[in-house]
Amino acid sequence: MKNILIIGCGLLGSSLLRQISKKKIAKKIFIYEKSKLNITKIKKLRLPGIIVKSLKEGVVNSDLIIFCTPMSEYKNMILKINNFISSKTLITDIGSSKLETSKIIKKFLKKKIHWIQSHPIAGSEVSGPEHGKESMFYGRWCIVIKEKNTPKNNINIITKFWKKIGSKVVLMSAEKHDKIFSITSHLPHLIAYNLVKSAQDFEKKQSYGLIKFSAGGLRDFSRIAASNQIMWRDIFFNNKDNISKAIDLFIKNLNQFKKDINLKNNKSIIKKLIQTKKVRSKIIRLKQDIDKPDFGRN
Amino acid sequence: MKNILIIGCGLLGSSLLRQISKKKIAKKIFIYEKSKLNITKIKKLRLPGIIVKSLKEGVVNSDLIIFCTPMSEYKNMILKINNFISSKTLITDIGSSKLETSKIIKKFLKKKIHWIQSHPIAGSEVSGPEHGKESMFYGRWCIVIKEKNTPKNNINIITKFWKKIGSKVVLMSAEKHDKIFSITSHLPHLIAYNLVKSAQDFEKKQSYGLIKFSAGGLRDFSRIAASNQIMWRDIFFNNKDNISKAIDLFIKNLNQFKKDINLKNNKSIIKKLIQTKKVRSKIIRLKQDIDKPDFGRN
Repeated sequence: MKNILIIGCGLLGSSLLRQISKKKIAKKIFIYEKSKLNITKIKKLRLPGIIVKSLKEGVVNSDLIIFCTPMSEYKNMILKINNFISSKTLITDIGSSKLETSKIIKKFLKKKIHWIQSHPIAGSEVSGPEHGKESMFYGRWCIVIKEKNTPKNNINIITKFWKKIGSKVVLMSAEKHDKIFSITSHLPHLIAYNLVKSAQDFEKKQSYGLIKFSAGGLRDFSRIAASNQIMWRDIFFNNKDNISKAIDLFIKNLNQFKKDINLKNNKSIIKKLIQTKKVRSKIIRLKQDIDKPDFGRN
Repeated sequence: MKNILIIGCGLLGSSLLRQISKKKIAKKIFIYEKSKLNITKIKKLRLPGIIVKSLKEGVVNSDLIIFCTPMSEYKNMILKINNFISSKTLITDIGSSKLETSKIIKKFLKKKIHWIQSHPIAGSEVSGPEHGKESMFYGRWCIVIKEKNTPKNNINIITKFWKKIGSKVVLMSAEKHDKIFSITSHLPHLIAYNLVKSAQDFEKKQSYGLIKFSAGGLRDFSRIAASNQIMWRDIFFNNKDNISKAIDLFIKNLNQFKKDINLKNNKSIIKKLIQTKKVRSKIIRLKQDIDKPDFGRN
C-alpha cells in the first residue's frame, strides 16, 4: 500500500488515521473532511496525515480510499470521485449495513472500479475526531463482504489491510451480514432509543422525575441510545426489512413474557431467565466482554 | 443501634454486612443464611458477624432486622419470626418492588411490629457473598417507603441507618416507587432478557452463530440479562400491573418506530434519536453514570 485517502474523519476515520500512521501502513495519508469544525479539531490535535482541499487531489494520489462518512453520503461522493478515479485505486468503507450500499455502489460507481465493503465492529456513543483512538479496531472483528463474483485479489488486499490494523477478519455475504447485525447491533440500538423514549413519555405523563433513579438499568441503555443520529438513521433505513423482522420477533417474545408474568407462570419465566444467562457466558467465553461485575460505575 | 440481624447473606446482604462492620454501625451483627454453600463461602472469606443457627437466636437479640432474601421468601420468614419477635425490634428490607410485599407484611406480620421498607438502588449481574463489597451502597439512592400513617420515628431510624451506610435517602409511597422502577429498572431488565432470547431464537432458526458478533450492542444487554433469576422472577410477578403497562407503552413506541423506518420518515426518526440523547446528558448531569466513552471493553 502506498497512499491512503480517508474520506470523513470523525470518530472512526480519525481512529483509522491514527492507527495507519502508527503502524506505518501507508506512505502518505490524505484526509478529506467536509466539516470545518472537524478540520479545526484535527489540526488542533495535530493528527497525522495531509488534509486535502479538493477530493480530486486525494483520489488521484491514492491506492486505497476508505469511506468513513455516514452511508447517506456515499452516492454523492461516488458521483464526484467518478470524475477522476482510475482502476488502480481500490475503495473500501466501514458502514454498518451492506446490502443497500452495495446496490448504490453497483448503480453509481464507474465501471471497472473495485469497491470491497468492510464493517469493523467498533465504535462508541461519542462522535468526532477528538474521541478517536489508535486501538479502536484492535482485536475486534472486521467483516469483509465477499460475494460469489468478488475478485479474490481485492479481498486479499483488504483483508491484509485490516489485519495490519489489528482486527480479526471474517468474510461473508452482504445478505448474511445484514441479517446477523440486524439482531446483534441494530435491534439493540433501536430498543435502547425506544426504551429511553418510553421513559421520557412516562415522565411527561406522571409529572415526576425518574431519570435520577436510572442506575437500576435504564442508564445502561441510555449510553447506547446516545450514539450518532445520522449514522443510526442511515442504518435503520438501509436495513429496514431485516430490522422489521427482528422487531416483530422481539415483540412476539415480549408479549409472551407479559402473558407469563400476568399468569405468574413460574416454570416458563425461570426457564427463560436461566436460558439467557447461557448467552452471557458464551459472550464472555468468546472474549466479547469481561466477567468483572459491573457495580455502580464511577 | 445495638445489634442487627441480616437475613440472607448473598450479594447485597454481605455488602451490608461488610459496611455495617466497617462503619461500626452495630455492636453485634448476626447473620441468618439458609444456604450451606453461602455459609461455607462466608466463613472462607472471614466476613465479620456471627452466623446464627436458629432464626430465634438472631431475632430476640436484635434491634434491627434486614431482610436480604428474595421477596418470595418474606411470607415464610414472617410466619417464623412472628413466634419470637418483640415490638422493640424494627424490620426493614431491600426488595426491588414494594406494593405487593407491603400487602404480605400487612397480612402476615404480627400486630405492633413495625416494618419500614427500603430499596437501595444497587446491585450487579453476579450473585453470592463473594461478590459483595462494602462500597456497594455508597453514594447511591436508597428509597425509604413512607405512607400517610408510617410512624415518623421509625422512618428517622431507617433513614439514619442508610445515611450511615453512605446512601442518599429519598422518601416516597410504595405506589409511586413501583411505578418509577417499572420504567427505570424492571422494563430494562425484561427487555434485556427478551432481546437475548430473540437472538437465541434467531440463531436457532438461521443455523449460524451470531453471538461472537455481539460487541455492537447485544453484549451490553447480555450483562443485564445475566442477573439473578429468582430475584427477577419475584420482581416481575410482584410488579406485574405496572410492568405490563410499561411493556404496552414500549411496544407502542416500537411499532411507531418500525413504521417510521419503513416509510423512511427522516424528520420523525432524527427527532427521536436526538431527543433520547438529552436523557443521556441528564443521566450524566445527575451523576448516575460517567461520560467516558465506552469503547470495546477489555
